[in-house]
Amino acid sequence: MTRYIYAFDEASEGGRELLGGKGIGLAEMTQLGVPVPAGFTITTDACRAYMRDGGFPAGLDEEIADQIARLEEKAGKRFGDPEDPLLVSVRSGAAVSMPGMMDSILNVGLNDVSVGGLARSTGNEGFARDCYRRLIQMFGETVDGVSHDRFSPDDTVEHAREVYVAETGRDFPQDAREQLRRAIVAVFESWNSPRAQVYRRTYEIPDDMGTAVNVVQMVFGNKGDTSATGVCFTRNPSTGEQGVYGEYLVNAQGEDVVAGIRTPQPVEEMAKRLPDAYEQLLETMARLEHHYRDMQDIEFTVEEGHLYLLQTRSAKRTAAAALKAAVDMTAEGLISREEAISRIDPGQLDQLLHPMLDPKADFEVAARGLNASPGAASGKIVLDADTAVERGKGGESVILVRWETTPDDIHGLIQSKGVLTAHGGMTSHAAVVARGMGKPCVAGCEGLEIDVATKEVTLGGHTLHEGDVITIDGGTGRVIIGEVRLVPPAINEDFETVLGWADDVRRLKVRANADNGVDSAKAREFGAQGIGLCRTEHMFFGDRLPVVQEMILASDEPGRREALERLLPFQQSDFEEIFEAMAGLPVTIRLLDPPLHEFLPPLEEATDERMRNRIKALTESNPMLGTRGCRLGIQWPEIYEMQVRAIARAAKAVQKRTGTEPLVEIMHPLVGFAEELHRLRTLTEQVMAEEAPEIEYTCGTMIELPRAALRAGEIAEYADFFSFGTNDLTQTALGMSRDDAEGKFLTFYLEDGVIEHNPFETLDQDGVGELMRIAVERGRAAKETIKLGICGEHGGDPKSVEFCHGLGLDYVSCSPYRVPVARLAAAQAVLKEAHRAEYVAAGG
Amino acid sequence: MTRYIYAFDEASEGGRELLGGKGIGLAEMTQLGVPVPAGFTITTDACRAYMRDGGFPAGLDEEIADQIARLEEKAGKRFGDPEDPLLVSVRSGAAVSMPGMMDSILNVGLNDVSVGGLARSTGNEGFARDCYRRLIQMFGETVDGVSHDRFSPDDTVEHAREVYVAETGRDFPQDAREQLRRAIVAVFESWNSPRAQVYRRTYEIPDDMGTAVNVVQMVFGNKGDTSATGVCFTRNPSTGEQGVYGEYLVNAQGEDVVAGIRTPQPVEEMAKRLPDAYEQLLETMARLEHHYRDMQDIEFTVEEGHLYLLQTRSAKRTAAAALKAAVDMTAEGLISREEAISRIDPGQLDQLLHPMLDPKADFEVAARGLNASPGAASGKIVLDADTAVERGKGGESVILVRWETTPDDIHGLIQSKGVLTAHGGMTSHAAVVARGMGKPCVAGCEGLEIDVATKEVTLGGHTLHEGDVITIDGGTGRVIIGEVRLVPPAINEDFETVLGWADDVRRLKVRANADNGVDSAKAREFGAQGIGLCRTEHMFFGDRLPVVQEMILASDEPGRREALERLLPFQQSDFEEIFEAMAGLPVTIRLLDPPLHEFLPPLEEATDERMRNRIKALTESNPMLGTRGCRLGIQWPEIYEMQVRAIARAAKAVQKRTGTEPLVEIMHPLVGFAEELHRLRTLTEQVMAEEAPEIEYTCGTMIELPRAALRAGEIAEYADFFSFGTNDLTQTALGMSRDDAEGKFLTFYLEDGVIEHNPFETLDQDGVGELMRIAVERGRAAKETIKLGICGEHGGDPKSVEFCHGLGLDYVSCSPYRVPVARLAAAQAVLKEAHRAEYVAAGG
Repeated sequence: MTRYIYAFDEASEGGRELLGGKGIGLAEMTQLGVPVPAGFTITTDACRAYMRDGGFPAGLDEEIADQIARLEEKAGKRFGDPEDPLLVSVRSGAAVSMPGMMDSILNVGLNDVSVGGLARSTGNEGFARDCYRRLIQMFGETVDGVSHDRFSPDDTVEHAREVYVAETGRDFPQDAREQLRRAIVAVFESWNSPRAQVYRRTYEIPDDMGTAVNVVQMVFGNKGDTSATGVCFTRNPSTGEQGVYGEYLVNAQGEDVVAGIRTPQPVEEMAKRLPDAYEQLLETMARLEHHYRDMQDIEFTVEEGHLYLLQTRSAKRTAAAALKAAVDMTAEGLISREEAISRIDPGQLDQLLHPMLDPKADFEVAARGLNASPGAASGKIVLDADTAVERGKGGESVILVRWETTPDDIHGLIQSKGVLTAHGGMTSHAAVVARGMGKPCVAGCEGLEIDVATKEVTLGGHTLHEGDVITIDGGTGRVIIGEVRLVPPAINEDFETVLGWADDVRRLKVRANADNGVDSAKAREFGAQGIGLCRTEHMFFGDRLPVVQEMILASDEPGRREALERLLPFQQSDFEEIFEAMAGLPVTIRLLDPPLHEFLPPLEEATDERMRNRIKALTESNPMLGTRGCRLGIQWPEIYEMQVRAIARAAKAVQKRTGTEPLVEIMHPLVGFAEELHRLRTLTEQVMAEEAPEIEYTCGTMIELPRAALRAGEIAEYADFFSFGTNDLTQTALGMSRDDAEGKFLTFYLEDGVIEHNPFETLDQDGVGELMRIAVERGRAAKETIKLGICGEHGGDPKSVEFCHGLGLDYVSCSPYRVPVARLAAAQAVLKEAHRAEYVAAGG
Repeated sequence: MTRYIYAFDEASEGGRELLGGKGIGLAEMTQLGVPVPAGFTITTDACRAYMRDGGFPAGLDEEIADQIARLEEKAGKRFGDPEDPLLVSVRSGAAVSMPGMMDSILNVGLNDVSVGGLARSTGNEGFARDCYRRLIQMFGETVDGVSHDRFSPDDTVEHAREVYVAETGRDFPQDAREQLRRAIVAVFESWNSPRAQVYRRTYEIPDDMGTAVNVVQMVFGNKGDTSATGVCFTRNPSTGEQGVYGEYLVNAQGEDVVAGIRTPQPVEEMAKRLPDAYEQLLETMARLEHHYRDMQDIEFTVEEGHLYLLQTRSAKRTAAAALKAAVDMTAEGLISREEAISRIDPGQLDQLLHPMLDPKADFEVAARGLNASPGAASGKIVLDADTAVERGKGGESVILVRWETTPDDIHGLIQSKGVLTAHGGMTSHAAVVARGMGKPCVAGCEGLEIDVATKEVTLGGHTLHEGDVITIDGGTGRVIIGEVRLVPPAINEDFETVLGWADDVRRLKVRANADNGVDSAKAREFGAQGIGLCRTEHMFFGDRLPVVQEMILASDEPGRREALERLLPFQQSDFEEIFEAMAGLPVTIRLLDPPLHEFLPPLEEATDERMRNRIKALTESNPMLGTRGCRLGIQWPEIYEMQVRAIARAAKAVQKRTGTEPLVEIMHPLVGFAEELHRLRTLTEQVMAEEAPEIEYTCGTMIELPRAALRAGEIAEYADFFSFGTNDLTQTALGMSRDDAEGKFLTFYLEDGVIEHNPFETLDQDGVGELMRIAVERGRAAKETIKLGICGEHGGDPKSVEFCHGLGLDYVSCSPYRVPVARLAAAQAVLKEAHRAEYVAAGG
């Protein structure tokens, strides 16, 4: 028969999954000799059986009775004794810490009679009545669902009982064993509370894990001035600095510290008031940290001078603290470098790379949009790019506020601290450019209206004017009126140290997506080992746009060639800057990708009939699936020819000037058929041979169409490398335009649980990942030496980086600001893989 | 050593691939005892060797010399003899008949001296000089590339030689063996002529097949009144009727019959003028047809009363002739039913189902568009649907001419003979609706401009007015000003007979795509075994549109439900009609698929602010990849709920009224995740159980996204059937919007040979087909009993039908007018498969 209970001092095979986090902590502490009250844990098996059958499994009641008898023997008190009752707390404890579940009921076992016995045996009637009042209130709230606001800490026992009776229609249960049983049931059932379900869905915790229940002999922090209760960290959870960091309250019980009714004292104060207990606390914390080899977050109670630990767990911490603690603990010899790497959440690193809203700042959110580019900024509203430049160059902090931005706004974006748009999604121009620049962007802000004529902005119903100050938080999509205090970015030595360790461990190379010399230099600073995606279309805007438009409007090939001839020197100098910034590292240049109509104004802004006709002819129903990528290069080879020529000349010039030969990789987008790449490779080879026969280069393609993934074997014949364009591959494989999905049905899908992750943020491994797997297999089978990378946004997402590692790619490429995240995630992927291999080797 | 030549009377192992079509025919005829001039065939091996090495392979010259010696011996004449020369013709003959290659050079072996000998030995100087003149001209044109128009049939020998010298800068070669060798080289080289290359690409003939060369002793149809030359069919190639059908010319040689310089006589006339030869011709033709068991197309020459066959080949024929001949030959016991089925080109059947332009009619094409729906029609131009109805109901034939049509034009389409649009592609509204109705449509006509205000139409530069007559040919995309004589559709007994045989053979079921009772009845008439795709969105237009718009504009669910409540009876009655028309056969109803904005007017036609806002909110960048299909049903379940309710009630009503229970299949579109179908299946089951628990039905999904194909195993858990939506699957797998590809880069790709087939017409087997294969495997592995079909347009394309057969699908579904095509193609697929199996069993 299954055993459903283990006492803290009994060895169990089950570990965290069976006993829950709290239970395993209490058992381990007990077995370490740390002072812990006696008690036992009802396993998650019991909870699962309860959920399955709708009642206690056979034998559980008997096991509880046995364990209570064991507790009674240890304590020398009886449960339900009217004179000197044994009291217990009942606490939930799942394997994973989980808000939304019932937490604790204290003082279980008291009733109308034994409250008098407790008063007599402790000589403290106030204490006894306080305990009973707390029991009635907690029991009422958590077991019977009485609303929290019906009770008050100032209630008397009598008043609490009246409320209980009025709300539940029953008397408060007087039988200690009935109290205990109902409390255990309440913990089991809280596993399925709506809040707990939502939390599980968000954090992907399986629904069938269940929770354990801990029954712990009560110790009392509310027995007067030599009693206390508190919470404490072994290091500062904000900074990672060594030394205890916590708070306590004298003469208080359990939840009082966190409930915020009384103001707690810094834990160091205990040194004066409870010196023995404090010394024991410090000694115990040191032992626990040493045992767990990680920063701990503990709960303790001092009962009449005696210290008891009630909980220990790994402490939540800021990114800065996590890095500092990891580096320090490695120096202290507590953990290895590999463990230090594993302990940092790569997603958290963003906090260190961008200014953030001060977590202590107080503010009201006026409107919300999409969290399109992380970081926070405050500044004066400007409504057009020219004003942004004027004011920005004048030293003012400005936020560019637009319906949406276009490439024509680029000079304004450069001078702004951040950008806020009413329209557009995660792939809108503003979002993409801001992410590349590392500036905050809130896009598609619903509560934002802009009247350019009157220079008025309405934000969540408030009217503002150009020059008024707002604050945007691109990490969460919040927009606030006025200035909010910011926390500056904090790349420090610890950051560099841990990432250096990660670099030693990882197999995947990390490159960056960058389109100019400045971004390339920034990427290199962040540790990028090359450019994985240089989009050449961004070079077609600004002062080049009129020439680009001439090219598009030309009626024949000679006309196009003439305009392209004038564009060439621009492209060449762009490439030269990038090659110089990345000297010694590879640079993958993608030839023109977007449909040509993106370079023309909207129809209503056409300046003449020819332009109007051309815009009409180029307009597409589904531009994502239209004449773009290599389809341009095949239909109008002179465009790609000019681009390859510019690359060749730039490489030659840089080599001559610097003596270092650029590592050139020429990439053709949107290939679906091997014949497309065949033709474009021939064109590339011809032009390179003509212009710069001495420059070595490779030629490859994006894999961003399902067909390309399936036919990778044939395509590999003409490719030196593949770069998975997982943005477009996601759009095509899922039939989902990102701009039309996010904020619309995709958001509904995520909220309603149809799918778990946003596939544009975290790679859809089952669908898109399957196509990648097929492409890797077929590509490598056809050409063993083919180089494989990814340059979609997923290249900077830790989960996706791990997947790419498992797939055996050679590199990931992401925006410069995600490079550190990818470096760390790539190292963690290696460590996880080794861990799994060990587990398997050990017969797991 | 490879042998490169076989004489006609020598057995060869190589067959058609080695000897070419003409060569194998001559050899077989020789071996049958049919009168054929002596000669030999230089194999395709020799041609391939020539192409590879750029010269004759070793031994070929010696083999030619041997064979010429053999010919000389048989003829009792010497090649190059000045007195009584042996003359030969040199003729190309690839395995597949192929225009664009050199055809023949006659009279090889004559020179300035032997022309006199020939005159003397035949006693006919005119004939001898005629032969020499022909040789010089043909040699000049085909070997030396002299322009055709430099020569004339009226030239003298002397003038022809002067032209030859002037054009080539050389004297005409006098050595018979040199003439022969250069003629052979010219045949080899004509294999790579640009025209031949284009032809091979179009008809997918491998470039490395090469051509054979036939060297045939000359027989002369130009030796006076007892000589003649002609071409003849064993049955009428237009109607298939029995009896010889051909033409001949007295005293003429070779190309004169087809060159059209003299008017040939019907071959029956020979009965009077050359009775012996004629009788022998009839007898020979009967033998050949019997031998080849197929209608033959022959060339013959009569030399001084003696008949010679120069060529025999399978005759090209119209669809009607093909059917009649097949049925007759089966009745005659000449071929089996299976052979009869195999001989009909399914693509040709279209000719019989629609009126066509009379092939003999003379007309000028004013403009061209896309061949969006087959058939031809003449009628008066009308520029709006109301006028079409008014005039159409009044009995006039009208063609609706529009920029593009919308569902609001549907009543006008019904009353028109055909539709012509300036905009839109193969999937435009006009195209889809016209195909469904079996009416001709030319879409996206570039040379068409419409001025609605003045009621003027410009067509290829000509100005026309409403009421002027035009003719459109939807099978080719041609538009003609004025009326053109049409050939009526010809579904006759032969058609029914052959399709009946096909039905006995095929394994695939054939269903139709139809959205209403009339089309369903038409489909059934054409032999559809069910409806594979009933699109419900077409039922949302017309007088229902205002209610649909109310539904979309409603601000909350109750508002939507109220409008849906009013739509329900309409949907129900639509379904009742279809169920009745298809009694006893399955009907697959697809729930609403298109994005909601398709039901709203363009922004500029919005009638109020609410509508304007809603249109804005619903507008999508890439509607193909937006909120459509099951994404609608999941976000607004009340829409699908209403549709399922209407299906349930219609099924119940029809069962009650007719006593036959409809076979209902409910299909959810655009599923990408199993969880989507899980939810929609639950909804479907709930509503069906509520409304019509007694009605049996199945519930399934389209597979039209790459992700759905890859995850077919999981999706199958909730699906009774899959229907491959290969239109959308092609668009997503290839990243190609049909509307943006056809007439644009896709047309360029096809013309430029980047890809071979239009993937929207013929399934892209390597890409889309691969996804289907994966889905079939995974779907069947998860659920053995799952029913599999296809409802994309490929369901009516013969090549794609064959692929679906090979994949093991259960059915194909196509537009009603393609049902006969699919029935035949499905039967042919079975026969081809059996043929391959036999071939493999025989060790092939």
